[in-house]
Amino acid sequence: MSAKGKRGTAVPGPVGVIGLGHMGSAMAANLVKAGFEVVGTDIVARYRSALKKAGGTALADARAVGERSRRIILSLPSEAALQAVCADLAASCLAGTIVIETGTLPLAAKIRARDGLAGSGVTLLDCTLSGTGAQAKTRDLAVYASGDTRAIKAFRPIFAGFARACYDLGEFGNGTRMKFVANLLVAIHNVAAAEAILLGVRSGLDPATLVEVIGNGAGSSRMFQVRGPSMVNRTWDEAMITGKVFQKDLKLIGEALKDAASPAPLFCATLPLYTAALAAGHGEHDTAAVYEVFERMAGMIPEAAPGPRGRKAR
Amino acid sequence: MSAKGKRGTAVPGPVGVIGLGHMGSAMAANLVKAGFEVVGTDIVARYRSALKKAGGTALADARAVGERSRRIILSLPSEAALQAVCADLAASCLAGTIVIETGTLPLAAKIRARDGLAGSGVTLLDCTLSGTGAQAKTRDLAVYASGDTRAIKAFRPIFAGFARACYDLGEFGNGTRMKFVANLLVAIHNVAAAEAILLGVRSGLDPATLVEVIGNGAGSSRMFQVRGPSMVNRTWDEAMITGKVFQKDLKLIGEALKDAASPAPLFCATLPLYTAALAAGHGEHDTAAVYEVFERMAGMIPEAAPGPRGRKAR
Amino acid sequence: MSAKGKRGTAVPGPVGVIGLGHMGSAMAANLVKAGFEVVGTDIVARYRSALKKAGGTALADARAVGERSRRIILSLPSEAALQAVCADLAASCLAGTIVIETGTLPLAAKIRARDGLAGSGVTLLDCTLSGTGAQAKTRDLAVYASGDTRAIKAFRPIFAGFARACYDLGEFGNGTRMKFVANLLVAIHNVAAAEAILLGVRSGLDPATLVEVIGNGAGSSRMFQVRGPSMVNRTWDEAMITGKVFQKDLKLIGEALKDAASPAPLFCATLPLYTAALAAGHGEHDTAAVYEVFERMAGMIPEAAPGPRGRKAR
Amino acid sequence: MSAKGKRGTAVPGPVGVIGLGHMGSAMAANLVKAGFEVVGTDIVARYRSALKKAGGTALADARAVGERSRRIILSLPSEAALQAVCADLAASCLAGTIVIETGTLPLAAKIRARDGLAGSGVTLLDCTLSGTGAQAKTRDLAVYASGDTRAIKAFRPIFAGFARACYDLGEFGNGTRMKFVANLLVAIHNVAAAEAILLGVRSGLDPATLVEVIGNGAGSSRMFQVRGPSMVNRTWDEAMITGKVFQKDLKLIGEALKDAASPAPLFCATLPLYTAALAAGHGEHDTAAVYEVFERMAGMIPEAAPGPRGRKAR
Repeated sequence: MSAKGKRGTAVPGPVGVIGLGHMGSAMAANLVKAGFEVVGTDIVARYRSALKKAGGTALADARAVGERSRRIILSLPSEAALQAVCADLAASCLAGTIVIETGTLPLAAKIRARDGLAGSGVTLLDCTLSGTGAQAKTRDLAVYASGDTRAIKAFRPIFAGFARACYDLGEFGNGTRMKFVANLLVAIHNVAAAEAILLGVRSGLDPATLVEVIGNGAGSSRMFQVRGPSMVNRTWDEAMITGKVFQKDLKLIGEALKDAASPAPLFCATLPLYTAALAAGHGEHDTAAVYEVFERMAGMIPEAAPGPRGRKAR
Repeated sequence: MSAKGKRGTAVPGPVGVIGLGHMGSAMAANLVKAGFEVVGTDIVARYRSALKKAGGTALADARAVGERSRRIILSLPSEAALQAVCADLAASCLAGTIVIETGTLPLAAKIRARDGLAGSGVTLLDCTLSGTGAQAKTRDLAVYASGDTRAIKAFRPIFAGFARACYDLGEFGNGTRMKFVANLLVAIHNVAAAEAILLGVRSGLDPATLVEVIGNGAGSSRMFQVRGPSMVNRTWDEAMITGKVFQKDLKLIGEALKDAASPAPLFCATLPLYTAALAAGHGEHDTAAVYEVFERMAGMIPEAAPGPRGRKAR
Repeated sequence: MSAKGKRGTAVPGPVGVIGLGHMGSAMAANLVKAGFEVVGTDIVARYRSALKKAGGTALADARAVGERSRRIILSLPSEAALQAVCADLAASCLAGTIVIETGTLPLAAKIRARDGLAGSGVTLLDCTLSGTGAQAKTRDLAVYASGDTRAIKAFRPIFAGFARACYDLGEFGNGTRMKFVANLLVAIHNVAAAEAILLGVRSGLDPATLVEVIGNGAGSSRMFQVRGPSMVNRTWDEAMITGKVFQKDLKLIGEALKDAASPAPLFCATLPLYTAALAAGHGEHDTAAVYEVFERMAGMIPEAAPGPRGRKAR
Repeated sequence: MSAKGKRGTAVPGPVGVIGLGHMGSAMAANLVKAGFEVVGTDIVARYRSALKKAGGTALADARAVGERSRRIILSLPSEAALQAVCADLAASCLAGTIVIETGTLPLAAKIRARDGLAGSGVTLLDCTLSGTGAQAKTRDLAVYASGDTRAIKAFRPIFAGFARACYDLGEFGNGTRMKFVANLLVAIHNVAAAEAILLGVRSGLDPATLVEVIGNGAGSSRMFQVRGPSMVNRTWDEAMITGKVFQKDLKLIGEALKDAASPAPLFCATLPLYTAALAAGHGEHDTAAVYEVFERMAGMIPEAAPGPRGRKAR
């Protein structure tokens, strides 16, 4: 039953994937392509069907995955889901199973989950992911792994099946801590991009040229490259992450800052902009919509329709 | 007397370079390597000597350069220097000469210079540069060219001799405007890097790992990659740009924002940090020293290091 | 058994006070002085003794207060305390009892408490207080009353016994909402005072003169008048409210802003300063200690003073 | 010719007032009422006429005032005006004349003016004023006097004629320095008021009640009391100080902060709001119009017409 990964490492039985949303389904599909046997589940039926189409085996629930697999990936939307799934796994997994928790969730919740599984001889790793759903599809993810070093090592062949890089960051929780640092920068760079584009547009520069030129120079950031085009093309209705969902990330970063007693003036300066984006009706839009908040501040009255807007204040 | 550039375009006589500091000397050296005849000058004698060593011809002053060259590059430190040099060039250049102004200076000063030279039939272009002195040495510069399109076209072979890319941004002044947008982001991303590293360090992450991992992910920026290592290694005494000199850039960005009536909350949030860096004795250090301001805020008492520290509380 | 208040209004039996800390004890004492019979309790024995000395009657617990009194004041430190006390009151109070909740607590907790008491025919009012413990002693409080209008009216004679003013703000919760608005300003004005004093001191102005002159002019705020002297005299170890306790208020304001989707750039800009004050060891000091954070930022090395200082840099 | 002030001190001849705008005319009128002989001038003819109506003597120009008066008050709008007037006074004043400069102007300009007059034996004092034009009318001004102590003492009877208080702040320039500290707070408290009112309004509180209750509590500031009503009543077209003119003050504060190397996060956080107010067309409105910028940020679309606006987002 044991699969032989492309990279020639013996993997004890199928890889389990619990949670088959954007990230989970992309990881599962890439693992199938890499030669792994994949079993998975999700509470949404059509996500299970999609797994079958991608070449995996859909199981009824987390317990079933726990019974079949010694290497399990969790890709869950909330603390509550993590708690429920871990209760099932504690009841079903064999001792020696390794489970990686890939979500951006409160660290305290991950610690509780780890401790709960430890009683059953199951090792939970805190392995956050750097990359969007789109990047997950092209295997363009980095894994911020943390926890038991030997378990991380044992999981490496599987990481290689869905990610381009994996860092062993040491102590359990460092994966989440690193993710918070990354997300703090994501939050800032997104707003910075909007602020910079506004200056350019109001100075009379051509928006498309601006995005190309700046994205290629000393002022560039990954976020500028990713979201700058959405800002000038006003395509924030195609959300990579919605303003509403991002609030969860902002809250977690805020708590991490408080726990570390770390002052963060730029991060704090982004908060009113994200709040304003929600207030102005962009809750279901991509976070690139903060650009419209800047336009509003500058008195650039939003038109009703799609298409490029003017740059003149009244 | 006309040189034939590597790219096979006839260039009317030598290329002039006025101002042979970090940027100017690097451009001159690369032009020599690219097969151009280069004449240049600087008020500092040893900079003129360095040009000779690099294979160029050192002339006594700007007027002499104006007499010898139809294609001139200005790399000057201040508005006053620009004014003085342009007065000399107006008196010495033949009509048809093209001069490119590469500095980050007030746009009004560049416009005055352009208008002053126009009377002598000399075309001034506003061509700011994206890249540091180190990048200039490896020809890793981008030119933000603006002004007369035909003059930009005529200068292209020379741009190719010292830069990897050249954008024609249209109307005179757009080069400077684009540079301000880039610098606004540089100012923000540098402080953001410090803020993020502090969070990581105070969360218990290894600084070196942090800089590597974050610099390679969604939270990365060019500035994080460039200055993050200086922050964690505390090597800000090796200045790419000193805190004091950067004040000039901050002021110009501030004026650009005011002229465009463009609100910039993140840029404004960086100002107290840069001010604090000066107050704490980092005027001659690289701007990466803002990291120490964050440490101070967080009560991390600075080690007794060499060099002046700030004023005592009264 | 019914007392006749100074103002001649019949009050049905004694006034109950549950929670006899700074605020509760001051209110109880003033009610005694105003001619009311007061019964009260606290889980801390010496607070109960203090009530006896002040002329009131100490009872064993909240249930006993609920049995004796038809007009009850709650002055509790936490959501948990509110929940526990209200469970006791629901079990012991007669229908028709009016209870006022005076704390700064999450509005959701107050709503739950109100709904829980409603089943027993007990009316809970949300009546926050404006003023410090010191002001409570001199009856210099304002009540931000909200909830059932008739109940507020019925309570007015008692309000008059411990406060100088009472506003009926309408719908239940408006008392808390108004308090959040006031506290947002308190948070900002305190940091603004520190920032202004730093500018004055670094400009060479005499600190004591500065505090007097500014406190009396167009730039003044209540907080400047209250905390400015603590800043220049460095007396923040005498806490009106500690940095640590104030974190609770900051969190509640943050949640109120989020609930209202109301952007608050200045409030957000204060957060890193308050965080830094905690990091620098001012958790048990008055919030006026943010002034020292400003000094640190400006490189004014803190004098070797008694008491703990912050963590060392690596 | 010498007038006897109410306070019985001999004043050598008439008091001169140069600059008869809002502040100057109010001071002149109050000095007349206080029994002083007043001579004055302004380049605007109708301001000179108004002085006559108020009981003073209008002279043709500054030189004429210099010839007639030994005690002169300057109330000028700009650095250029100060320079011109002082040139005239240097040419016309007798040695021993005392001139007080009351404007909020760059300190360097005042120093130049002082040095220029010193050659003619004329003493210039730096005496900024705390209070608005409306307060000037009711003699509700405070004088921040600085410079030669004996000259300040000699001027005291005149101060008493137009101000309620006068502080001798020491060294020349301290008047201006103190004014910058006050103005920094004015800038912050105005934006803080807008931010707080927005939270209240979006939380469902009645705006008028809010302004009354908050203005009377711990969160109050002089600015909240003065501008809060303008915000909720949307009467910012009646400007005490316009957004455009206030830019000059913001710039001076910014320079003072830079000169003192004093970090000012809250002041910096106000800048984008004031810029946005200009961008949104409030240049000629009172600075209370920042409230509308907050509304815009929150997606509260402004109605086209005058009169009160809605408070609902979307």
